[in-house]
Amino acid sequence: MSEVTATLVSLSDVRAARERIGDAVRTTPLVSAPLPRAGGRPATDSPDAIWLKCENLQRVSAFKARGAYNFVSRLTQKEREAGLLTYSSGNHAQAVAFAAREFGVPARIVMPTDAPEVKRSATVALGAVVELVGTTSDARKQRAEEIQAQEGGTMVPPFDHPDIIAGQGTVALEVLDQLGSKKPGLVLAPIGGGGQLSGVAAAIRGAHPDAEIVGVEPSGAASMSRSLEQGSPVTLDRVSTVADGLKPVRPGDLTFAHCRDLVDRVVVVEDEWIRDAVRWLFALRLVVEPSGAATVAALLGGAVEPAREGETVAILSGGNIEPALLAEWLA
Amino acid sequence: MSEVTATLVSLSDVRAARERIGDAVRTTPLVSAPLPRAGGRPATDSPDAIWLKCENLQRVSAFKARGAYNFVSRLTQKEREAGLLTYSSGNHAQAVAFAAREFGVPARIVMPTDAPEVKRSATVALGAVVELVGTTSDARKQRAEEIQAQEGGTMVPPFDHPDIIAGQGTVALEVLDQLGSKKPGLVLAPIGGGGQLSGVAAAIRGAHPDAEIVGVEPSGAASMSRSLEQGSPVTLDRVSTVADGLKPVRPGDLTFAHCRDLVDRVVVVEDEWIRDAVRWLFALRLVVEPSGAATVAALLGGAVEPAREGETVAILSGGNIEPALLAEWLA
Repeated sequence: MSEVTATLVSLSDVRAARERIGDAVRTTPLVSAPLPRAGGRPATDSPDAIWLKCENLQRVSAFKARGAYNFVSRLTQKEREAGLLTYSSGNHAQAVAFAAREFGVPARIVMPTDAPEVKRSATVALGAVVELVGTTSDARKQRAEEIQAQEGGTMVPPFDHPDIIAGQGTVALEVLDQLGSKKPGLVLAPIGGGGQLSGVAAAIRGAHPDAEIVGVEPSGAASMSRSLEQGSPVTLDRVSTVADGLKPVRPGDLTFAHCRDLVDRVVVVEDEWIRDAVRWLFALRLVVEPSGAATVAALLGGAVEPAREGETVAILSGGNIEPALLAEWLA
Repeated sequence: MSEVTATLVSLSDVRAARERIGDAVRTTPLVSAPLPRAGGRPATDSPDAIWLKCENLQRVSAFKARGAYNFVSRLTQKEREAGLLTYSSGNHAQAVAFAAREFGVPARIVMPTDAPEVKRSATVALGAVVELVGTTSDARKQRAEEIQAQEGGTMVPPFDHPDIIAGQGTVALEVLDQLGSKKPGLVLAPIGGGGQLSGVAAAIRGAHPDAEIVGVEPSGAASMSRSLEQGSPVTLDRVSTVADGLKPVRPGDLTFAHCRDLVDRVVVVEDEWIRDAVRWLFALRLVVEPSGAATVAALLGGAVEPAREGETVAILSGGNIEPALLAEWLA
């Protein structure tokens, strides 16, 4: 087992990404909310105690727009004009389609056969060509690499690249601006491949060394927890969770290194807590997909306590839930 | 027919209300969005062009928290302790229940028998005693006055009072802060009884005399349009609209005077546009009730064009839609 060494993304890398991205993505709201509680208590009957960073209200309804735009903006014109190519369970797919449209170049995207319809149709609506292959991150990655080998195109990695990580980290710079004179005590981000958590950790750790940074992943797809235990990235045999965006079977080498070196700890959440969190957030009139509700699920399920000092911030990473699934959970 | 004369609420009244309310309500997000289009085009495939003021993310999921809190904060302790009393189709009900809880006093509320369950149960969850009477604003008002005559209590009027109007107007002060150096060109607010529009008009007209202020009401409950035509408040024989919060059969004397003197014009929207607007907003991951989507419906249906100069701001006044109804409209 070789040790993973890597140059980590820095606060100044994230600041540079923010300059580059400019107004291409939205500054999403940071809204106050009560402390989430399990067991059906309404979301509105107690005073506000935490902050929710609403990346569900971002362009393409997910934080992924940040990283993809930053990555694509750093390509040469020639690389962009070769066409963008990627593989994704859905939100990175939309983000690459969005970035391609912004730069006026084509995009071709491999998605799993079980990708939520809401994500697939939004990707197509943004003008990308979509191919459905397999159900695992490995299967779709392999197919995208095959297309690239045969037909060319510029791959936009879903998470394991410094420009993706730095782009995702811009969400944390906004949080710090929005908190104003208040200090972050605890920042929670979900873990799929680990790109957002890595970028958030780079930004927060750089600006507030004492803030606690906690990653959240589903118990049925706990690839980062397992990798941290092992000391290097491991590949899970199978994953099972309602959080379709948190299913990568293996962290990236680079995202693993960020989590190992910059993140305080990773907690796991149960699917039932995620469902409760989606319902609790809807009571606040926030539409959040299962993956995006994982951070609230961690508070709701008691996997993590709110900060004793400083502010507690939970990132709601996306809002692309199937309306029918939402209706079923709310019924 | 006697002419309605009244002392209008001023910008400084609204500023005083804001001081009084302080942190009791949330500063809700002002988010950018594309121009709404009819006919099923997705909400996410074009650049942002307008601003949405998200009072659906307010406490009790509606702007009504502002006015009720301001009104109750100006009562004497004795008046408050007599218990609060009101009549409402739902959002003012929750707002009075919320204000009562904040001040630690009881609340008793008359709601229509067809009030959405989501509004009734939230009012009860906030600790108020609810009585269901009739289906019109007149019927429930009469019952509340009967209770007051027999048992006492302090009535919190739903819209036709300077302290209610000034409280609702604080939403516009936030919009102006959030626009920063940008100037409002067109501000759209829905009309139920006219309290919010009156407060918004007082604040915007005071700060930006050239901004256009437009009220929006459903074609099936166009009491303000009819009253403006007549030159004085008229009572409609019947009302019919999906916008359950915009159904008062008669404007207030005071809100009528504000609309006549401060508002540029009132436009009407069809129920089908409102349904389209609710769907279009959901594609942006905003849960907005039919009444709250009326302003977007006016843009979507072409009843009003976006501002040529300055920013276009549509107030989303509330988010209390029945999940089952939302699911039905999204299916």
